Amino acid sequence: MKTCLDCISCFFRQALEASRMVSDDEALHKEILQEVAKEFSNICLDESPPSISRRVHKIVRDLTGNPDPYKEVKRKYNQMALGLYPQLRERVLKSDDPLLTSIRMAIAGNIIDFGVGNSFDVEKEVEEAFHKEFATLDYSEFCDFIEDSEEILYLGDNAGEVVFDRLLIEVIESMNKRVVYAARGAPIINDATLDDAKECGIHENATELISTGSDAPATVLEFCSPDFIDRYENAQMIISKGQGNFEALSGEKKPILFLFKVKCPVVAKNINHKVGDMVLSRG
Amino acid sequence: MKTCLDCISCFFRQALEASRMVSDDEALHKEILQEVAKEFSNICLDESPPSISRRVHKIVRDLTGNPDPYKEVKRKYNQMALGLYPQLRERVLKSDDPLLTSIRMAIAGNIIDFGVGNSFDVEKEVEEAFHKEFATLDYSEFCDFIEDSEEILYLGDNAGEVVFDRLLIEVIESMNKRVVYAARGAPIINDATLDDAKECGIHENATELISTGSDAPATVLEFCSPDFIDRYENAQMIISKGQGNFEALSGEKKPILFLFKVKCPVVAKNINHKVGDMVLSRG
Repeated sequence: MKTCLDCISCFFRQALEASRMVSDDEALHKEILQEVAKEFSNICLDESPPSISRRVHKIVRDLTGNPDPYKEVKRKYNQMALGLYPQLRERVLKSDDPLLTSIRMAIAGNIIDFGVGNSFDVEKEVEEAFHKEFATLDYSEFCDFIEDSEEILYLGDNAGEVVFDRLLIEVIESMNKRVVYAARGAPIINDATLDDAKECGIHENATELISTGSDAPATVLEFCSPDFIDRYENAQMIISKGQGNFEALSGEKKPILFLFKVKCPVVAKNINHKVGDMVLSRG
Repeated sequence: MKTCLDCISCFFRQALEASRMVSDDEALHKEILQEVAKEFSNICLDESPPSISRRVHKIVRDLTGNPDPYKEVKRKYNQMALGLYPQLRERVLKSDDPLLTSIRMAIAGNIIDFGVGNSFDVEKEVEEAFHKEFATLDYSEFCDFIEDSEEILYLGDNAGEVVFDRLLIEVIESMNKRVVYAARGAPIINDATLDDAKECGIHENATELISTGSDAPATVLEFCSPDFIDRYENAQMIISKGQGNFEALSGEKKPILFLFKVKCPVVAKNINHKVGDMVLSRG
């Protein structure tokens, strides 16, 4: 998905929020926004939003000198999600259709996204997700793909959210499948790195934890490592988690199932859905 | 009021909305946003938001070649407001306190603001404004100033909104006062120019209609004509209508009564109010 002109104002908001997260120095915030403005004064928008977001947050990291501006909020949401985990797991496993219920929970966790904003209510989101109707639900295709795969590549998204992914991964692995979980290769916004995935206890469920090798806030293939690309190319099935991974991978000719919550009007328009919609889509 | 870093993303949104209003050419939209980005790559934010907005919209006008991108929407809202006028006038004049009720209506009209966004419901706003509590209501000072003044300078704001201002002006003039209405000197966003004020029938109520001589989307004094400055300096009382005029004139040592609806979080924070609040303030 290409970046839209509407995304530009959003990138400035993101850069300001990230800057304020690590510094109270308004002169520095201004310097960062001026640098972002320089970037957009001759930018090509043929790239996907996560690809451009990568540049914007690199400016924030470089000018603040902070390699991980969202470190504290990532820790906070990792712990918060772990606190919810036991009761959510029980509700999933006791439900009529644990696979579908765990998909609902994985989508609920997708609300923990500091790229879109810094205001969300995870517990409210969870309760809604248990009952809300899907805007797209390619569930039979999802089940067929799992049935036909021995190993599934699961592209993770944000810190904290990993805990919700574990619920789905546990159900899939109970079907005698292997799940390989891919986290980001370096800190970017509140996306889950290998450390975040470990803090969320991913090793208790996923067969293997790998890195995309990239510092983009989604699986932007051109920035991923050759090792990761090899895994991606040979995957029998890919579960692409989160809006960012959809923005980066929609249109790719691979066996991808996209699983996310629609969180911005540009993506909503692109797929003819509404902000807030829940999506499980073959793409 | 100085421009805040949060305003920058809003200026990009405004520039895009204005560009789309006059052209479907995405390459042109992109060129405009790149030019706006160049402007912000070394901008000083000591100016007020309307002062910077003036530059942004000049870029839109220059690159689209359209001197008045909001011409059609201004006409639409002028006519829409004129349609509401007879019934609103009746409700104002029949009310217990026509002066306060007409102030409420003048604030209701302040919702017609394409600088803040392009989605609002004027009729809903009107009904709300009849009853809503003011966040600040310096009514006795307002009345005292009117009592002590022979002539009042009324700084207008947006097209369409002028019709709502007429309700207040009629009540003030019924107290044997003269009201001089100032409209913008050139088209900018959907702000009322002399032509818009005339289309709204301002001459039926105000004693005199003058121009600020400026193309800023508010009364930014440094861009106003010497003639206007002379009227401003010698005014016994100034009614400053709209959020933009507050942004441009708050802090000025003149007998100004600010009358507006809070429409953005930056202004809300500045005056410790909430978005949506109604304000009649001595500043």
